[in-house]
Amino acid sequence: MEPTTLKVALVIGAGDSTGGAIARRFAREGFVVCATRRDAEKLTPLLEEIGDQEGKAYGFGSDARKEEEVVALIEKIESEIGPIEVLVFNIGANVPCSILEETGRKYFKIWEMACFSGFLNGREVARRMVARGRGTILFTGATAGIRGSANFAAFAGAKHALRALAQSMARELGPKNIHVAHVVVDGAIDTEFIRNNFPERYALKDQDGILNPEHIADNYWYLHTQPRDAWTHELDLRPYMERF
Amino acid sequence: MEPTTLKVALVIGAGDSTGGAIARRFAREGFVVCATRRDAEKLTPLLEEIGDQEGKAYGFGSDARKEEEVVALIEKIESEIGPIEVLVFNIGANVPCSILEETGRKYFKIWEMACFSGFLNGREVARRMVARGRGTILFTGATAGIRGSANFAAFAGAKHALRALAQSMARELGPKNIHVAHVVVDGAIDTEFIRNNFPERYALKDQDGILNPEHIADNYWYLHTQPRDAWTHELDLRPYMERF
Amino acid sequence: MEPTTLKVALVIGAGDSTGGAIARRFAREGFVVCATRRDAEKLTPLLEEIGDQEGKAYGFGSDARKEEEVVALIEKIESEIGPIEVLVFNIGANVPCSILEETGRKYFKIWEMACFSGFLNGREVARRMVARGRGTILFTGATAGIRGSANFAAFAGAKHALRALAQSMARELGPKNIHVAHVVVDGAIDTEFIRNNFPERYALKDQDGILNPEHIADNYWYLHTQPRDAWTHELDLRPYMERF
Amino acid sequence: MEPTTLKVALVIGAGDSTGGAIARRFAREGFVVCATRRDAEKLTPLLEEIGDQEGKAYGFGSDARKEEEVVALIEKIESEIGPIEVLVFNIGANVPCSILEETGRKYFKIWEMACFSGFLNGREVARRMVARGRGTILFTGATAGIRGSANFAAFAGAKHALRALAQSMARELGPKNIHVAHVVVDGAIDTEFIRNNFPERYALKDQDGILNPEHIADNYWYLHTQPRDAWTHELDLRPYMERF
Repeated sequence: MEPTTLKVALVIGAGDSTGGAIARRFAREGFVVCATRRDAEKLTPLLEEIGDQEGKAYGFGSDARKEEEVVALIEKIESEIGPIEVLVFNIGANVPCSILEETGRKYFKIWEMACFSGFLNGREVARRMVARGRGTILFTGATAGIRGSANFAAFAGAKHALRALAQSMARELGPKNIHVAHVVVDGAIDTEFIRNNFPERYALKDQDGILNPEHIADNYWYLHTQPRDAWTHELDLRPYMERF
Repeated sequence: MEPTTLKVALVIGAGDSTGGAIARRFAREGFVVCATRRDAEKLTPLLEEIGDQEGKAYGFGSDARKEEEVVALIEKIESEIGPIEVLVFNIGANVPCSILEETGRKYFKIWEMACFSGFLNGREVARRMVARGRGTILFTGATAGIRGSANFAAFAGAKHALRALAQSMARELGPKNIHVAHVVVDGAIDTEFIRNNFPERYALKDQDGILNPEHIADNYWYLHTQPRDAWTHELDLRPYMERF
Repeated sequence: MEPTTLKVALVIGAGDSTGGAIARRFAREGFVVCATRRDAEKLTPLLEEIGDQEGKAYGFGSDARKEEEVVALIEKIESEIGPIEVLVFNIGANVPCSILEETGRKYFKIWEMACFSGFLNGREVARRMVARGRGTILFTGATAGIRGSANFAAFAGAKHALRALAQSMARELGPKNIHVAHVVVDGAIDTEFIRNNFPERYALKDQDGILNPEHIADNYWYLHTQPRDAWTHELDLRPYMERF
Repeated sequence: MEPTTLKVALVIGAGDSTGGAIARRFAREGFVVCATRRDAEKLTPLLEEIGDQEGKAYGFGSDARKEEEVVALIEKIESEIGPIEVLVFNIGANVPCSILEETGRKYFKIWEMACFSGFLNGREVARRMVARGRGTILFTGATAGIRGSANFAAFAGAKHALRALAQSMARELGPKNIHVAHVVVDGAIDTEFIRNNFPERYALKDQDGILNPEHIADNYWYLHTQPRDAWTHELDLRPYMERF
């Protein structure tokens, strides 16, 4: 592979579900994938799977909430692996709690994970992309980013702030040829978490009532491929039977 | 072609730009296209073009604002050509005017074209689709469907009402396996109208600053292909350099 | 009363509930009230009530959907009674129906009542107000003006269009010193209709769970009194216990 | 004054403009005002002014971002002064910056001031109010809480999160008889800051083109007085000539 044509897709929060599927999707399209999780060891199955499919992927244990770690990681990738063409930010923190019981510590941590990390990674990658005059930055949003609800003050706050980040970046960086988009995932995703904690919900899988991570990933890929005269900034994804 | 596999895409308002491009796109994918305009003769170039590319298309001069015409046309297509699998509603009526000068007649006509036609066609096709348990209905929206602005009371009203139609239909028909989506086109499109009336705007075409109808059409096709566990209800499309 | 200080508040749709309460409120503040309903006779109790409280009110049977009637009525009021300082548009048409069963006639009529009338009256009064350089125009909105929902395509369409009208007028006429505002009433109102058709809902009245029309009217009055450096364009009203 | 009738209005961020005006307004209505700023000395003129008008006010230098300080302050007020009937959260942090230049430290501090403080104070007061079964919580929002924009990623993020907090709290606490509202102030306010930094903008004061803090304060008072069958959750305030 020629260094000049090598393209990196950096997936922050490449978990077992959506983030992993997105990583595999971009690998399949010829991207060198850089995948991060807080615990690098958990990335092993994903890296092996991509390798088995003749893709190329690197894993990094990195705390996306720490500015120095983010700066160092992106510098390392850019200097040792290649230019980051696509950034996918995919960290959530959906922890419900009554406003009356919410602690300052938890309210902060949810924002730090679901929003501040997005800012740090978005800014750091944007600096490189603006210098090159191109790039794609994709944020995973949620319905909580559109409306607040009882027992979700912390998560809704973080997701609203993330959406504001995506909008602000799109308005500033679009004219610089950086495609910034926000994907509102509205519904349960086919994950271990849903399987174990919401078995009735999970049973809807037979009727396509929960989101397939591979299908979510297809939309991220699609957004990346849009020609710049017709960019989407925001789209929603939900099962056909989901109430909204 | 087997009758059982034949699929019709009905494009209401298959003009020289977006509507025509959408018709060609679905024809290229194997759909039998039924294209309508008020003046059937103007459809000739589109029908020929599709024929030249080995596609199949029928043209109909039909007034989409007349309930009987709409009912008759859809009955005719369903009985003589095949099941309507996809409906694209693409009629606009962007005529600015100060609220102080707007006439009742014009205010009504803009709504009738841009919204009422959408209702008539949407309802009539939905009845068939619900009976079959599947289908896709796509509405072309605009920024005026999201916010009102000075001198656009009539157009904004019609486009807001169309968006409300799309949302209401999605919420009612989604669980019946009908995919209803609304595309917010935000920016100038590469049309004769823009070329002749807004030459400075049109000049941005060299920098991809106006929307290419073929690229808009790709998004309609994409929406149709989404698997039902991950449907998009609304996406926006705009040139990278567009202010929003 | 001096002709120079006489001020008219025109209430279109002065029904037994909200519209009537608004009429009484403005009468109490010294306005000459002009109240309309399709059936003038039904205005008698309201006019008498205002008279009993030493207020001044005129009733008009007028079809707010007919441009000539609207034009003639406003000309009559302006020439025979006094300058219209405040317009309140308060006609609704909340008739649910599945999209599959909705007729063109009903879809049109709901829009005509809930939106087109608002346009006709708003425009006609705005012309006078702009000439005088002041005035207040208040539209009664609903949650259906913010979001569509199953079985409400027609009503949501009309209310979305009305909201677009209010927004467009505010953006055009605000700088001309006309205060245009839109009130989103979200919840059941204390009316005969709710009492008879939704008795369980009505029973919430004991806990203040349905809106008191007098309290709605207070908000219309309040909006009118706002000094022009701090105008509200949109506010919502709902009972404390209402889900939203 | 009887302890049973004494009511406290706590104003977090009682600065020289809006916050101060709100404090004076509630004092004029008979509330005992507790006003906070980071620097207690700066509160002296406000406290004196309220005293001169026969009102009662206490000042507190308190860092609204520190959970222990917030908890201690509210405990102190509740035990030594009286029950907090109204909380007004009025801290902003409008500091524009390109996303490319924004630091993690500043992004965090803007959120901490404009959002986290709101959470801490809102939660802590809500606990007392829920126990008493009544209260009013008012948040000062901004247009940046509704839409992101170039160079405002940090401020828009904080204000979006604050709006999500207000919405989430309203949905959870409304049924518990706590009125939570969010005021979107859209436009320049008559402040020293605007006078010194945007003299052309400030010159619009002669035409009522900038917001008078006293008029903003009237709206906060008005929201507090709404009967619970007709509560407003969100209203916007802007000069008549402001573009929006």
